[in-house]
Order: sequence, then structure tokens, then C-alpha cells
Amino acid sequence: MKEPFEKYIADLQNSICQSIEQMDGNEKFKEDVWQREGGGGGVTRVISNGIIFEKGGVNRSAVFGEVTPALAAQLKTSGASFFATGISLVIHPVNPMVPTVHANFRYFELYDQQKNKIDGWFGGGADLTPYYLFEEDAVHFHQTFKSACDRFDPSFYPTFKLQCDNYFNNTHRGHERRGVGGIFYDYLRPNTSHDENFFFEFSKACGDSFVKAYLPIVERRKNLTFTDEQRKWQELRRGRYVEFNLIHDRGTIFGLKSNGRTESILMSLPPRVRFEYDDKPVAGSKEEELIRVLKNPREWV
Amino acid sequence: MKEPFEKYIADLQNSICQSIEQMDGNEKFKEDVWQREGGGGGVTRVISNGIIFEKGGVNRSAVFGEVTPALAAQLKTSGASFFATGISLVIHPVNPMVPTVHANFRYFELYDQQKNKIDGWFGGGADLTPYYLFEEDAVHFHQTFKSACDRFDPSFYPTFKLQCDNYFNNTHRGHERRGVGGIFYDYLRPNTSHDENFFFEFSKACGDSFVKAYLPIVERRKNLTFTDEQRKWQELRRGRYVEFNLIHDRGTIFGLKSNGRTESILMSLPPRVRFEYDDKPVAGSKEEELIRVLKNPREWV
Repeated sequence: MKEPFEKYIADLQNSICQSIEQMDGNEKFKEDVWQREGGGGGVTRVISNGIIFEKGGVNRSAVFGEVTPALAAQLKTSGASFFATGISLVIHPVNPMVPTVHANFRYFELYDQQKNKIDGWFGGGADLTPYYLFEEDAVHFHQTFKSACDRFDPSFYPTFKLQCDNYFNNTHRGHERRGVGGIFYDYLRPNTSHDENFFFEFSKACGDSFVKAYLPIVERRKNLTFTDEQRKWQELRRGRYVEFNLIHDRGTIFGLKSNGRTESILMSLPPRVRFEYDDKPVAGSKEEELIRVLKNPREWV
Repeated sequence: MKEPFEKYIADLQNSICQSIEQMDGNEKFKEDVWQREGGGGGVTRVISNGIIFEKGGVNRSAVFGEVTPALAAQLKTSGASFFATGISLVIHPVNPMVPTVHANFRYFELYDQQKNKIDGWFGGGADLTPYYLFEEDAVHFHQTFKSACDRFDPSFYPTFKLQCDNYFNNTHRGHERRGVGGIFYDYLRPNTSHDENFFFEFSKACGDSFVKAYLPIVERRKNLTFTDEQRKWQELRRGRYVEFNLIHDRGTIFGLKSNGRTESILMSLPPRVRFEYDDKPVAGSKEEELIRVLKNPREWV
């Protein structure tokens, strides 16, 4: 499963970067190939100061090594060594009418002292972070991933939608979600009903849905005009994105504390950000409406 | 000890805010008085968009309540209930030639089930975060706190200077310190040589040193001209400040995860920030010189 999944995410990285470049029409991704001390490495691609995309990163990696005590605690399971491969991306557009997006698809294996595979699972998801809420965009994003889920199991979408709302949650902001969600799944292991290949196909279906879920939204919103005040609101909301990623995101915190490649991990941070004391949207405004939805996640489909 | 320390920090908050306002000459602090569910409250004062100070917060609080398991783990000691009071401040100037500064002075008590005091200690410190290094500023800041320390114990300054370098450390950035340090102390308890009052007097000496340590530096640098590029560098470096506070700072993370007052905790975040992928200063530049010092802390006095 390692090789086919690695090949899949390498192809996915190519096709996503190509679609993003084509949409931007001006900027191209720059690539950094890196090695990891202890085993493995990755390919980080970053786009900066595009016409549409202010900052975006599409990263893939395949790493292996010993299971440290910190990793065992994070995984809530144990083994002597591990292999992990995945793709992780975050796109921050210039225009506050265009939402930020994140997606991640990964595969993990654990081995015993004799290097026998003792466990393996898939994880992943995608979530949308608008600065101004266009309901049809949230519906389109959710519908696209729901359609992918439904081809595999009707219980997947409702389960993974809820997990997404619960995960991307700034609990310290009165349970304000990072955005309007999407899907989030983890520890999908072969079981009595489904083999490993079933979950591989499911992961591919989700990965293949990313461009279809996100780019039509960009297309619809990219030419909308916006004011300096709306841009300021976007920068304040990006502050919340930073808060989530650095305070709550397990992958980010674990990566940084276990000597991961800092630049590849923190490519997710937005390019320009504001933090103001006690900033609050005006009552009855579009900005306040967004916060209300973030605090009370909706069913979009 | 609770009452005299609370009174001291209330006076210190007043005198620091007054000095900052006087230096700015334009903006005034705004005050929020808040209550804490579970016991106590605080007084948060924030200055925004001043001529010299872009964002600053000077917060004091006195809180009490049950020792939760999370708090016990954080304190590495136990008790049934606690009382904590302190002042915490962060000042972010407009001009990148003027350093950011942070200081914190606090007192903590623990009680048993019968409400008898079973432990009590002082903590605190101050550290300076320049964007451009003026050696005489680092020397002045350290010398001021060293003079305060030396009046109490010649071992204090070298110990607390080292603790400061070790604490304000972005380990995930190749052990890049947040700034040029200062002093950091914690768990100063009565012992065979010194009573509680000795450490109270020491804390007061440190608190009283803050204005003397920082404002002469602001005075010297506030009228220096700067370019857009230097301002950009400041905003990138402020990104590192955000990273430290949200990833590593024990007080911030504990406060946010234990339902502290989010706005008062995060008043420390800089007003405008940038995050760029793999930003690196030009070889031989002033910016690179700063990084070198942050990675290899110096003895300033």
C-alpha cells in the first residue's frame, strides 16, 4: 500500500498545483526538495504573491523512523517503527470574498521490532474558511465531498462532517470553528466489512474531489470587488487561522516539537495577519453573521 | 503577602501606563475590568495606534479557585486551591528600530483542603525583542535588571539571565531566541537564607526597574527613520513572536486551555504580522546579524 499511495499523492500534488497555477494565470509554484534526518523527505511547493493566490503551499512527504515516546502518545498506539506519507495543502487567496482552503490526505504504517507491518490506516479531510459567507459556496464544497463519501458508505459524510466541525475548533474563542468545515477522518483501518483497498479508493475519491470542490468557488468570487475594511476583516480572521494552527492543530504542534521541517509545516500560516484587542463585528453585519455560523455549525447538504 | 503584592502591582500598573502614555504623547490606554468565573478578575489596559506604540497591553489580575488536574500538572506541585496575582505587559512599537518588550511579575499561593496556606512563591521577568540590534540597548536593559538583582544576591542575575535565554526560545527555529533576553525567575520560595519578604522586595525591585530599563531605549530610537523593507522585516519577526507565544509560552497555552480570559491573554500578539515561506535575511546584513545573536545568546554585562 505504501508505494501506490505515494504514487497517488505525487500525481495529486502535480494536478492540484497545475490547476492552481492555471487559475492564477500569473504566478508559478516554487519547489523545495528536502531530506529528513532520521529517514525520508518531501517535496514542498509554494506559490507567493499571485494575482489570485496570495500564499499557498502544497506539500508531500514520505517519512519513516523509530516510534518515539512522543509519537506513541500522539498516535495512542505503539510500534517500533513507522512509515507515513501524505499530501497537505493550504491556499490563502488575496480577495477576502474567496475562502481559504485546507486539505490533507495521508497513510500511516506501524511495524514491530522485526519490521513486520502490525498496523496501517488512512486519514485526511478538507475544510473551507470563508471571510464572507456565500451559502452556495459552503453547499458546493460540502456536496462535492458528500458525493465522494456516499459512493463508499452513507455513514461516512455525516460522521466525517461532524468530526471536522469538532476538530477545527478554536475552543478558546467560545468554540468558534475555523470555517464552515468539510470532512475530517482518521484511523480508517481494514475491518470486517472493508479491506485496505476500499479505504485507499476512498482516499483517492476524496483527493480527486479537492479541485472540483474548491476551484469553482474561486472562479465565482475572484473578481468581486472589496474594500480596505473587508481586507482588514480578512486579516483579523487570518489571525484566528494562526491561533488554530499553532494552539490546537495536532499535526502542526507535533511536527514542530519533533523536529519536523519547520518551513514545510508553517507554510500553512497566512501571509499578512492582524491581531487587535477585543475586535468585534458590528451587530447585524455580514461579519457578525459569519461568526454566528462559525459558533453554530450548520448542515449544508 | 497577598494584599501587599496586589497593592504593589496595582500601583505598578498605574505608573507604567502613565509613563507609556507620557512617552507616546497622543494615545491613552483603554481599560476593561473583568470578572473570572470561578473566582477573581482583572484589569486589562490596552493602548492602540499610538504615535510610538502601535499596540500595548498592561494587564493585572488576581484570581483564585480550585486546583484542577491541568493546573497541578503545570505547577508540578499540588494543593486543593490556589490564589495567583500578577502584572503582565507587552509593548509593540511602530518603529522597527524600537524593540518590543515584555514583563511579568507574579505571586502564587497554594492551600490545603482546610484553606491553610501550604506553599507560596514569586515569579517574573522581563525580556527585550529588538528588530534591529543596537548593542548599547541590550546592555542598558540587562544592566538595569542586573543592578536590581545584585542588590539582593550576586547569583541572581547570571541564573535568571540564563533561564530567560532558555525559556524564550523558538526551539523549532533552530533554537532562535525571541530576543536578546533579560531575566526570568520562578518558584522563588522562602528558604533557610531568605524569608518571603526578601523575595517580595526583590520582585518590587525588578518591577520598579521596568520603566528605567525600557523607556530610555524608546527615547533613543523613536525618531530614527526607517524604510518599508525594515518595517516588513519587523512584521516577519513579529511572526516569530506569535510562534513563541502560541507554541511555547506555558502561561499563554495554559490560560487558553483552562478557560482564561482570551482577550487579556492574547493582547500580547503583535498588531500586524507577516508569515513568508522560508524567509531568510541577506548574508552580511543587519538582519542576519540579529539572527546570529538570537541563536547564540551573548553576555551583555
